[in-house]
Amino acid sequence: MAGSGLIETLAPRIERVVGKLPRRVFVLTSAPIWALWGHCMQQSFRDAPVALFLEPGERHKTLASVEKLLRQMAVAGGDRGSLLIAFGGGIVGDVGGFLAAIYMRGIRYIQVPTTLLAQVDSSVGGKTGVNLPEGKNLVGSFHHPRAVFADIGALGTLPERELRAGLMESVKAGILRDRALVRYMEAHAAEVLAREPRALERVIAASIRMKAEVVHKDEREGGLRMILNLGHTVGHALEQATSYKTLLHGEAVGWGMVAALYLARSRGSVTSSQFERLERLIHLYGPLPVLKLRAAKVVAATGADKKNVGGVRRFVLPVGIGDAAVVEDVTPAELEAAVRYMLAQASESKS
Amino acid sequence: MAGSGLIETLAPRIERVVGKLPRRVFVLTSAPIWALWGHCMQQSFRDAPVALFLEPGERHKTLASVEKLLRQMAVAGGDRGSLLIAFGGGIVGDVGGFLAAIYMRGIRYIQVPTTLLAQVDSSVGGKTGVNLPEGKNLVGSFHHPRAVFADIGALGTLPERELRAGLMESVKAGILRDRALVRYMEAHAAEVLAREPRALERVIAASIRMKAEVVHKDEREGGLRMILNLGHTVGHALEQATSYKTLLHGEAVGWGMVAALYLARSRGSVTSSQFERLERLIHLYGPLPVLKLRAAKVVAATGADKKNVGGVRRFVLPVGIGDAAVVEDVTPAELEAAVRYMLAQASESKS
Repeated sequence: MAGSGLIETLAPRIERVVGKLPRRVFVLTSAPIWALWGHCMQQSFRDAPVALFLEPGERHKTLASVEKLLRQMAVAGGDRGSLLIAFGGGIVGDVGGFLAAIYMRGIRYIQVPTTLLAQVDSSVGGKTGVNLPEGKNLVGSFHHPRAVFADIGALGTLPERELRAGLMESVKAGILRDRALVRYMEAHAAEVLAREPRALERVIAASIRMKAEVVHKDEREGGLRMILNLGHTVGHALEQATSYKTLLHGEAVGWGMVAALYLARSRGSVTSSQFERLERLIHLYGPLPVLKLRAAKVVAATGADKKNVGGVRRFVLPVGIGDAAVVEDVTPAELEAAVRYMLAQASESKS
Repeated sequence: MAGSGLIETLAPRIERVVGKLPRRVFVLTSAPIWALWGHCMQQSFRDAPVALFLEPGERHKTLASVEKLLRQMAVAGGDRGSLLIAFGGGIVGDVGGFLAAIYMRGIRYIQVPTTLLAQVDSSVGGKTGVNLPEGKNLVGSFHHPRAVFADIGALGTLPERELRAGLMESVKAGILRDRALVRYMEAHAAEVLAREPRALERVIAASIRMKAEVVHKDEREGGLRMILNLGHTVGHALEQATSYKTLLHGEAVGWGMVAALYLARSRGSVTSSQFERLERLIHLYGPLPVLKLRAAKVVAATGADKKNVGGVRRFVLPVGIGDAAVVEDVTPAELEAAVRYMLAQASESKS
């Protein structure tokens, strides 16, 4: 659920979902989040949860961190009935979910995401895991949280750029499955970007709902769930081509959606006016960063995508507004044209 | 399935279960097993599988080994369609299953157990994982193999003591669920212990079937599956009290079943004649090692069992022959009497 004042009332909310709290409750968090919110968060618990800390940053999203944390859980007396709360951004959520997935072959956990991207995307869907030196998210489990509590209040301190990047996942949600969300985000961009609580809650709740529904129908990514990767094939290629240094994930997805829309228009699955409307919506929540890249490099990088099986390149393309389809027959020439179109915009950044 | 000649005909057997073999097939094994059986195993594969090696011994059943192996899989081009074959004893099966559980959030795997204990017990049921310095099997996943191929031929070189210890799990299977297996093992002990292929196949197939049926009804150990722990509460306590150095796992379970039978008789859930018959069966597949332990130490060690939740001690007790129940109200005095009875036998080893 999304709302205000969730963090300070967490314990009774969790008990409404899982029943009486167990003897051991763990909170995985990061020191900065704990410094800001730890006191507030603990006040609704009769017995203070055991706090576990993950160093901030992608480079700590490793099996070595996981082992250290699992050992702390064992030493603190965690058993199969224990509960873990992942309290932080996307990395805390991914690692926390993975700890819960593999500690004693699986314990229950709750997501309390504190960044917009974690709230609208990574906290929902049960994808958990860590990186290997060979690639991101190569290790993990599907393990669903018992509940997600997205507190709008935690977004007050979120940098503007992260807010806008996170909202790209909400734009994606609208394009994929929710025409009403597209209309709302078109009409209320000013309120949403000003973090007006009711506007933000409306957008976040709709984004979570869309993802939860898709995931519910396809828990282990067999088919339908693939549509959630709209904008991600080119998006991941952009992240890789810029060594994960230039773009926030949501920004890469924003540019990736522009390329996907171009492909969809040239194949006739969206009309020109739908194309223009959705492209305008993406830029409404921009600006997306300027990129100086060669199209060939981006096209080459799409070949290494983790979602490719047996060498086939998969794309999610919008079908009108509110639907999408997975296609496997995009030719290199088609893809290159779409990437060129997107890079032409990105090199000047109209937004 | 259990049978002879499975290892040299593995590839077509696997294809009958999972369809065409994928581009990358991994085999996790140990150097000694590979030296004995690697050539034989590879002959049915058109493209040789990528062999991954785990050092033998419980001390290599760690997250560090897991990380090293996952990286090798990534470097070798493993993708979500890849297949892993766990080819070896129980440790290879546990680690192999865990690799398959967490590589790219889960790939398919096949168990090809080469020890009796792995064939009748650990390869069935989907329990996978590794140890932490804080305790055995504290980390893992439930991840079911697509198939188990138990080749009787691999048991030809198994030491006599491991054969007898492994058969304790078959005795357990009979006591729990299969009166016909109890009768067969009573009547054909000589053939089974002489490794007569048909006798061994009969016993192994029945053991696998029993476990698979129980697990199928309770995949994540919510209720029924608990009965598989017959003999394990006291058995684990004996292993711990002897620092895992004196007893093979099956031997500890054998002594644990003697204690469980004593408890069951004193509570009236087995008659005196059932008690004597089942105790005789256990010793028929002995000898179980001599133990010099104080009862109080063993009773204390049962308190630390991983299966205890919220401090409650759980016991599985036979109900007649072919059924069992979980009880939570065994008093320390009752338990101590049962352990004393068992230790009196164990100190002289009648078997």
